[in-house]
Amino acid sequence: MKVYEPIKHVKVKDRFWGGYKKVVESEVIPYQWQALNDELADLEPSHAIENFRIAAGISSGEYYGTVFQDSDVAKWLETVAYSLRNFPNTELERRADEVIELLGMAQANDGYLNTYYLLKGPQNRWTNLRDNHELYSAGHFIEAAVAYYEATGKTKFLDIVKKYADLIECTFGAEPNKLKGYPGHQEIELALVKLFDVTQNERYLKLAEFFINQRGGTPCYFEEERVRRATIDTALTWNSEENVNFGLGYEYQQAHRPVREQTEAVGHAVRAMYMYIAMADLAARKNDESLKEACERLWDDVTNRKMYISGGIGSTLNGEAFTAPYDLPNDSMYCETCASVGLAFWANRMLRLEVHGKYADVLERAIYNGTLSGMDLDGKRFFYVNPLEINRHQKSRKDQSHVKSERQQWFSCACCPPNLARMIASIEDHVYTRSSDTIFMHLYIASEMETKIGNETIRISQQHDYPWRGDIQIDIQTTALTKFGLGLRVPGWCKRATLQLNGEELSMESLFNGYVIVERTWQDGDQLRLLLDMPVEKIRSNPLVTMNQEQIALQRGPIVYCIEEVDNGSNLAALRLSKDAQFAIEWQDNLLNGVMQINTSGHRIQPFDGLYTSAVPKKHAQTVYAIPYYAWCNRTPGEMRVWIYED
Amino acid sequence: MKVYEPIKHVKVKDRFWGGYKKVVESEVIPYQWQALNDELADLEPSHAIENFRIAAGISSGEYYGTVFQDSDVAKWLETVAYSLRNFPNTELERRADEVIELLGMAQANDGYLNTYYLLKGPQNRWTNLRDNHELYSAGHFIEAAVAYYEATGKTKFLDIVKKYADLIECTFGAEPNKLKGYPGHQEIELALVKLFDVTQNERYLKLAEFFINQRGGTPCYFEEERVRRATIDTALTWNSEENVNFGLGYEYQQAHRPVREQTEAVGHAVRAMYMYIAMADLAARKNDESLKEACERLWDDVTNRKMYISGGIGSTLNGEAFTAPYDLPNDSMYCETCASVGLAFWANRMLRLEVHGKYADVLERAIYNGTLSGMDLDGKRFFYVNPLEINRHQKSRKDQSHVKSERQQWFSCACCPPNLARMIASIEDHVYTRSSDTIFMHLYIASEMETKIGNETIRISQQHDYPWRGDIQIDIQTTALTKFGLGLRVPGWCKRATLQLNGEELSMESLFNGYVIVERTWQDGDQLRLLLDMPVEKIRSNPLVTMNQEQIALQRGPIVYCIEEVDNGSNLAALRLSKDAQFAIEWQDNLLNGVMQINTSGHRIQPFDGLYTSAVPKKHAQTVYAIPYYAWCNRTPGEMRVWIYED
Repeated sequence: MKVYEPIKHVKVKDRFWGGYKKVVESEVIPYQWQALNDELADLEPSHAIENFRIAAGISSGEYYGTVFQDSDVAKWLETVAYSLRNFPNTELERRADEVIELLGMAQANDGYLNTYYLLKGPQNRWTNLRDNHELYSAGHFIEAAVAYYEATGKTKFLDIVKKYADLIECTFGAEPNKLKGYPGHQEIELALVKLFDVTQNERYLKLAEFFINQRGGTPCYFEEERVRRATIDTALTWNSEENVNFGLGYEYQQAHRPVREQTEAVGHAVRAMYMYIAMADLAARKNDESLKEACERLWDDVTNRKMYISGGIGSTLNGEAFTAPYDLPNDSMYCETCASVGLAFWANRMLRLEVHGKYADVLERAIYNGTLSGMDLDGKRFFYVNPLEINRHQKSRKDQSHVKSERQQWFSCACCPPNLARMIASIEDHVYTRSSDTIFMHLYIASEMETKIGNETIRISQQHDYPWRGDIQIDIQTTALTKFGLGLRVPGWCKRATLQLNGEELSMESLFNGYVIVERTWQDGDQLRLLLDMPVEKIRSNPLVTMNQEQIALQRGPIVYCIEEVDNGSNLAALRLSKDAQFAIEWQDNLLNGVMQINTSGHRIQPFDGLYTSAVPKKHAQTVYAIPYYAWCNRTPGEMRVWIYED
Repeated sequence: MKVYEPIKHVKVKDRFWGGYKKVVESEVIPYQWQALNDELADLEPSHAIENFRIAAGISSGEYYGTVFQDSDVAKWLETVAYSLRNFPNTELERRADEVIELLGMAQANDGYLNTYYLLKGPQNRWTNLRDNHELYSAGHFIEAAVAYYEATGKTKFLDIVKKYADLIECTFGAEPNKLKGYPGHQEIELALVKLFDVTQNERYLKLAEFFINQRGGTPCYFEEERVRRATIDTALTWNSEENVNFGLGYEYQQAHRPVREQTEAVGHAVRAMYMYIAMADLAARKNDESLKEACERLWDDVTNRKMYISGGIGSTLNGEAFTAPYDLPNDSMYCETCASVGLAFWANRMLRLEVHGKYADVLERAIYNGTLSGMDLDGKRFFYVNPLEINRHQKSRKDQSHVKSERQQWFSCACCPPNLARMIASIEDHVYTRSSDTIFMHLYIASEMETKIGNETIRISQQHDYPWRGDIQIDIQTTALTKFGLGLRVPGWCKRATLQLNGEELSMESLFNGYVIVERTWQDGDQLRLLLDMPVEKIRSNPLVTMNQEQIALQRGPIVYCIEEVDNGSNLAALRLSKDAQFAIEWQDNLLNGVMQINTSGHRIQPFDGLYTSAVPKKHAQTVYAIPYYAWCNRTPGEMRVWIYED
């Protein structure tokens, strides 16, 4: 199987992403640090650092927080690691080193490192894999340690997680004396692959493979574990015996059947994403065609039947889960920020198995829309759930209380903000992949990168004002004349693209899976100019999506737009875009940190007394203003719609 | 205050309602009898009769069922009473007498009659009015006893409930030694007014007034009761201390403020209806303008802001409650059959306070649509929740599992089927009201009635094929020339009506609150012919109803139509009615016991691969067939829609 390697150490010079990365460095990381240390007034304490201090013996008290509170610390460290690549910061690095020191102190002699069990009952470790997230938190530590090692070269953190991973490897596996379990919340599988990548220790890869292969077997490990647990005095967390797995059975954890036999995306969306990532990673590392095929089938199901136009996934609060194909309610969905982050990461992994625009299109859709919407422009408030519609009834809907119409400061279950932060801090890792002789440019993020083709060093820089303008300038520097292919993605949303090499137009007639591949002997100073037509597009849903009938969404380039009450008045449902509407775009420098605003003609159906009428209701003409969806709820809170009625 | 009396002993000769009444007599009453006696295989036992047998000392065992299981027996007896008026049936009457005998045996010496407390802990009676429905069940017994007395002239049942009501009157009231409580679920208030009407015992009226006036006072009785209950060893039923009143506060029971200060319909919809009925009844009996005004305000709020086109009410499962104005989701609502039955009964009571088409229009909307939809045409299966849309996702929606896409055999909480049965069995009680000199015809139900104007006997018969045809023939018989007014309602849905008296056209120019009043000296044999134009109407919602945008409902006469999958294929959401569509109607004798079917031209948006497209989707022309909403789900179960997209 041909696989493609990511190109690391890309330097971001992008106005859009550079701004977000700065926000993560200057706002999110310090803010999350305060949260982890319970320094934020008026908020439920996190206790995450304190749990480690107690476990380390330097503080006293009891464990507090969710069973996976440790993972918040891990994700903070991972974000710090990525951020240090762009923004060296001695003070921050010193603080991270101190936290790592603390982890080392808390770690048990045998390598075990989970403060929930260390403080609540060490004898009960590994007795509730279904619910208690031990392997999940371990995975996040491994991811963080790998990132920190790669960013700083320091090995202390890596040593801690290797010791822990070694313990896990001694505990779980196919050998007769080992437990046959696997995580209730997938995560460690993909982390173990990363650990293998930096250590080349095959045992980590084998353990990841074991967890993936073991999953969904019969009899179900979680059942065996449940029976054994009857003799243990420990309360259930994060699940209930009255409504186990939210009524979804083992589909909730994607453990209903062996992973290679799974053809439909089911259950908890974040769990699913993390599992699919590990499957793709293992397919690449082990040349496993059956895993690759399973990934392709699942990709097709998620992106062609269960994904919001925002790149959001998870149609219901119940189990934070996928539901039936085309069931995409805009007001009651879950669309957890973490799930879209996971989808972006999965797309990245699929691009390592096959260069195909279908993966990069979804990657781009997720990073510019349903992930970024999870954070305000200042990096201070966060959405966990990302609705595509806040209607006039939302606030009074007790059964939709999970859908907030304003971002919140922090969450007692704080998975999403740090997940988004680590995505932004490492966004450059998604831009390029390569084979031995071809470099693929998946994302247009202004940046500089360097790689080797044979013995020659190739530097490629992108300059442009993406996502607002489609005029992409690419400069190539080489140490000598070098033959290689350069694949430029023509985004799925783009209907007309032209390409010039040193001022001469190149043919765009034959694309390879959505990429134009320029294969030649490059010389230093070569310049490409890719012009992507970027008109406002009216997007319609498949009519099998019952809730989007007679509605359109506006998209320009990769950016999905929405309308907000603050620009358009209340009861956005009664707005109509004209079927023959023309769209004007205008750069608004002072709006929402700078956005391309869309305005168009429409009208509003006028309310009348009472509820029902056989008369034709009156209309008033009105200009409709749309802003990027990712930037909604950064002004006066109110209604919002992505799907807008057309008449 | 002028009040209007209902005209009793109307004899129904109506094909439509006669059919339903026969179904109630021949199917529903025997079926419910079997259910009450646990004679239906494969169903959760009711135990309702058995509870009484145990309480009576002629059987042994423990109480089983909801806290208001007794009320199922009461509603059965009430339905039997009404049915006996139309269908004398010695065997059935004997069975009812036996049940009444059993009630007498179960009744405590002091008059108390509630098997839940009699069997579970008689010392705890009246300790949880908030949740445990004692007064509610008592109310249903009183209603049943009054009906049985009026139908048969027998007094045994009436004596039983008088004894119970006397006990309640000694227990609750303004006097210092009495409890200051009122029911958590309203019902006894309206029942006490009925008991007053047949007994003329003012104490019953006073007690009803006490319950209504006491409600919503400060401090809240339910709070005082809760504090007292702390010393009583009794489990909560039908509520939970973790989520008291479903998070709705005392709005849940409409006990959040005094009833006269209530301006918005809130909380549990059935409770609200029963309370509003009692308020209207008391306004009439006590000449209480403030109660009447409160009723008018609440009527306006319910019918102009919170009522489905079907006459359904209650927009959410959470508390089976009203939500915000115009919040009328079609797929997740509650729209309990009982609530629409209650709305019909309330409309009837408002017509006794004021003759106004707005009340009769809602009465008609409820009885022909959202109540009848609660039962299949055979009277064997029932909906509790009456959706206006079953879409392709419904069955997989775990968070909408209360919405069934097929009627069920029976319910463990079986309030709805007997409530609908008693409405049908007494439908004739809604047809007429009168003042001393004017008779008002509110509903067009083919029937014969008799009343007195002065000393003269007036007989009025209606002949027609309503609701299918608007040609109403009215024959008047008098014992002598008699002067009186006859008010005929011109339904709100009717845009053109003509009236002939003995073949000569009368002016329809001035209507009194939607009624044409023919005032004259009538002679025996006079004949009126009212012609109501009944085209298919396209009904639109107020645009403040976010979920009905760009959709129309079809209504013809009082009948709201729907489209079903069995006639129109799957994914009904993708169907479009043409904006310039013509509607054809056709009488289908063999369809759904005979209905007027609508067909019209439309098209279907064609699905495509994937989810989103900037292309304009293809359409296929298709004939669309609509059937009456009340008759949906009587063939192959599947999707259904009342609101249909138009393009």
